Amino acid sequence: MSDLKAVVFNCTLSKDETKSHTRVLSSAAERILQDNGVAVDHIHAANFEIAHGMAPDMTKEGWAQDDWPSLWPRVLAADILILATPIWLGEESSYCRKVIERLYAMTSLINEKGQQIYYNKVGGALVTGNEDGVKHVSMSIVWALQHMGFTIPPQADTGWIGPIGPGASFGDPSDAGTPVGFDNDFTKQSTAQLAWNLIHLARILKAAGGIPNQGNDSQAWKKGERFGYRDPEPLTRS
Amino acid sequence: MSDLKAVVFNCTLSKDETKSHTRVLSSAAERILQDNGVAVDHIHAANFEIAHGMAPDMTKEGWAQDDWPSLWPRVLAADILILATPIWLGEESSYCRKVIERLYAMTSLINEKGQQIYYNKVGGALVTGNEDGVKHVSMSIVWALQHMGFTIPPQADTGWIGPIGPGASFGDPSDAGTPVGFDNDFTKQSTAQLAWNLIHLARILKAAGGIPNQGNDSQAWKKGERFGYRDPEPLTRS
Amino acid sequence: MSDLKAVVFNCTLSKDETKSHTRVLSSAAERILQDNGVAVDHIHAANFEIAHGMAPDMTKEGWAQDDWPSLWPRVLAADILILATPIWLGEESSYCRKVIERLYAMTSLINEKGQQIYYNKVGGALVTGNEDGVKHVSMSIVWALQHMGFTIPPQADTGWIGPIGPGASFGDPSDAGTPVGFDNDFTKQSTAQLAWNLIHLARILKAAGGIPNQGNDSQAWKKGERFGYRDPEPLTRS
Amino acid sequence: MSDLKAVVFNCTLSKDETKSHTRVLSSAAERILQDNGVAVDHIHAANFEIAHGMAPDMTKEGWAQDDWPSLWPRVLAADILILATPIWLGEESSYCRKVIERLYAMTSLINEKGQQIYYNKVGGALVTGNEDGVKHVSMSIVWALQHMGFTIPPQADTGWIGPIGPGASFGDPSDAGTPVGFDNDFTKQSTAQLAWNLIHLARILKAAGGIPNQGNDSQAWKKGERFGYRDPEPLTRS
Repeated sequence: MSDLKAVVFNCTLSKDETKSHTRVLSSAAERILQDNGVAVDHIHAANFEIAHGMAPDMTKEGWAQDDWPSLWPRVLAADILILATPIWLGEESSYCRKVIERLYAMTSLINEKGQQIYYNKVGGALVTGNEDGVKHVSMSIVWALQHMGFTIPPQADTGWIGPIGPGASFGDPSDAGTPVGFDNDFTKQSTAQLAWNLIHLARILKAAGGIPNQGNDSQAWKKGERFGYRDPEPLTRS
Repeated sequence: MSDLKAVVFNCTLSKDETKSHTRVLSSAAERILQDNGVAVDHIHAANFEIAHGMAPDMTKEGWAQDDWPSLWPRVLAADILILATPIWLGEESSYCRKVIERLYAMTSLINEKGQQIYYNKVGGALVTGNEDGVKHVSMSIVWALQHMGFTIPPQADTGWIGPIGPGASFGDPSDAGTPVGFDNDFTKQSTAQLAWNLIHLARILKAAGGIPNQGNDSQAWKKGERFGYRDPEPLTRS
Repeated sequence: MSDLKAVVFNCTLSKDETKSHTRVLSSAAERILQDNGVAVDHIHAANFEIAHGMAPDMTKEGWAQDDWPSLWPRVLAADILILATPIWLGEESSYCRKVIERLYAMTSLINEKGQQIYYNKVGGALVTGNEDGVKHVSMSIVWALQHMGFTIPPQADTGWIGPIGPGASFGDPSDAGTPVGFDNDFTKQSTAQLAWNLIHLARILKAAGGIPNQGNDSQAWKKGERFGYRDPEPLTRS
Repeated sequence: MSDLKAVVFNCTLSKDETKSHTRVLSSAAERILQDNGVAVDHIHAANFEIAHGMAPDMTKEGWAQDDWPSLWPRVLAADILILATPIWLGEESSYCRKVIERLYAMTSLINEKGQQIYYNKVGGALVTGNEDGVKHVSMSIVWALQHMGFTIPPQADTGWIGPIGPGASFGDPSDAGTPVGFDNDFTKQSTAQLAWNLIHLARILKAAGGIPNQGNDSQAWKKGERFGYRDPEPLTRS
């Protein structure tokens, strides 16, 4: 019995799933989701022709191909969204930015309560690299998700990096026996928290019937409703 | 009848409240909170001697004075936390970083469910500057809050900036009559959304009896509970 | 007589150059370069099939097409590099990240002095958006460039944004007569500084015969040379 | 014979120098500077009463004490500036932001060529933490320095972090014998590069007689000189 749906975008640069370290960590989070009644839809972004751009369908803007329109219903169906990405030069991958741009391009859509389309969905970030950048990347992802209308549960990001400098990546086989990163207690705990807190908040929002639209009904705002906003006292001339 | 409490840290660099543009915008958000049954505790950080440091009480670490211990119960009592800050060189103020550091220094505390102490509180960001940086600052604040255990409602940040380059700030008197920034529809709407969504999520979490501690009980984790986390399949040697 | 070469990547998402606001501002910087003896090579990235990935030629990694190998000699020939990008959700475009990733993928190359291949080149950032984010985007670009070996002149970034919230973009026609942003003194001055300081530093480095390789000869480091680095005194047990 | 001067701000939160891990790494960089004819002025910021604020002397703005005016001549005398900082919640310390704010508050000063006061100085970043954030912190520091007028040499940042999650810090004694982080080749090489490249660029700028003021003479700009900046072609109405 699955009461919730999650969509996970793995934004690795590699087309070959078996080489993605991000997928390894993501699978740990996904297993917790699945074990607790969440249907997981895993999208390996690099295997789709997702066009760059800010329109719902970029084939209408001069692009020969664009798989985004076929991916969109899968996003729309989800209660939970995880953006999973590797780190390159301290930032999320170009694929991850492309997915964020395309998610953003849909924000003109609203739900039946006049809220932005991602309201009542919850989101989180999962980040891997061989060195440095989990927090910086999570900042950008978590902020973008809440800006677009997702609710962010507590401790909704996880990740793994090794010591600074080039090195092995999460899930690489190791001569010592334990695969790289599998002995990191912080990563394990953060991953469990991410998965569980996404479930908790998604269920709480669902049980509450979603977030009331008082204050965030963008259609009402356009029609002049101000939800109690009044101009504050300005500064006085000094 | 006030069912919720909010604490707002205004992290302006100015000791003089009447000169704080951040306070002007913050007061607009606070009024919506107050009009809807939220008791607001406004803290003008620059008027307190908050020591730098990572201990609950820095007078035990060689500082002559530290007002943080007296501020802490006010944070603890709040259901809602807003970090309000100006922008300097594209970043939150040094006061804001100091407040974040002191909030972070309390995260060894846990609640009765073994969750980090900020669980079941909600947080948001309010940012003003004369130019550029609302999003960057919000990224850092929103991320830090969720990392410490706050839940982040959708669209939980607001702000105002003017055109790029030096210029007037929010709430400055203007020869044109309308104080600077008061004609910006985006800022008004974002401020209303911030205030309302903080209220909505705080009430939803309260009505739900808080977030369940399955997966995020840090005490249980320390004792060996893994909440279903299992090592994923590592990569194979290529 | 052209003694210097500059390459400019316009990383707009639009394939249509005539719709790129970033191109408008970039052309102002490029004109100063050209008027002062710099040959400018302008690359409209969206009109090339630049693959995602971290190898010099991604057609060897399963991609059907990759124009990067044909663009690389143009980068290599340049004394000056400008990364020009729009802002989406507070970040550089996905095209810009793709270009940075591909630049990074070449850093295994070294010059005849054992320095990373971008040594003795100078770099800067040019950013436009309708609202907020010039500084955040410049932080990422400027840092990445210096990390890869570029020298960053003073005040090597410029940009334009309008007031916060949706709105017109740089160079849009305006009913008031003056195109949007053309009256912003800060943007004009920053653009002039960017162009001139790139020229100054490129000429200074050229006249100096480049940066000496003492301390930055990566080949010598690999062979055991430590350039005077000695382990510092560790902390003592407390 | 010392031809160059460097000032290093250690922005650790600890008043006790002997407990600062940032100082340990900084001392390695400083030794290379000193061994090569650079006089190093090391400032342990937490041992000074540096006020928060945006004026050259905050005692005139209601603060009881402000050591910044006495520190300023030491900054002014330097050819090289290093901002050294620990990481807290993925960001530079509140002390570091305070120092950056005070540096910024001096940018109304110009040199004899009409350039901002930091022209012809070079700057870099040195960052330590027990986990994650070197790149993010360096982005903010390096950007701020170039924005204020410093030149940034290639590879002008160094740092150390351990694996993700709480853990030991740089220079901590270790049961294994080697102090924590002393075996990290990347940190050693980056530190040597930082020190040497700061020296190289400082000497190159000095030998060149500084950066020409064509394009960056802010006084001339105020008087109407535009250094060849002309309005670009705007977009056409579509």
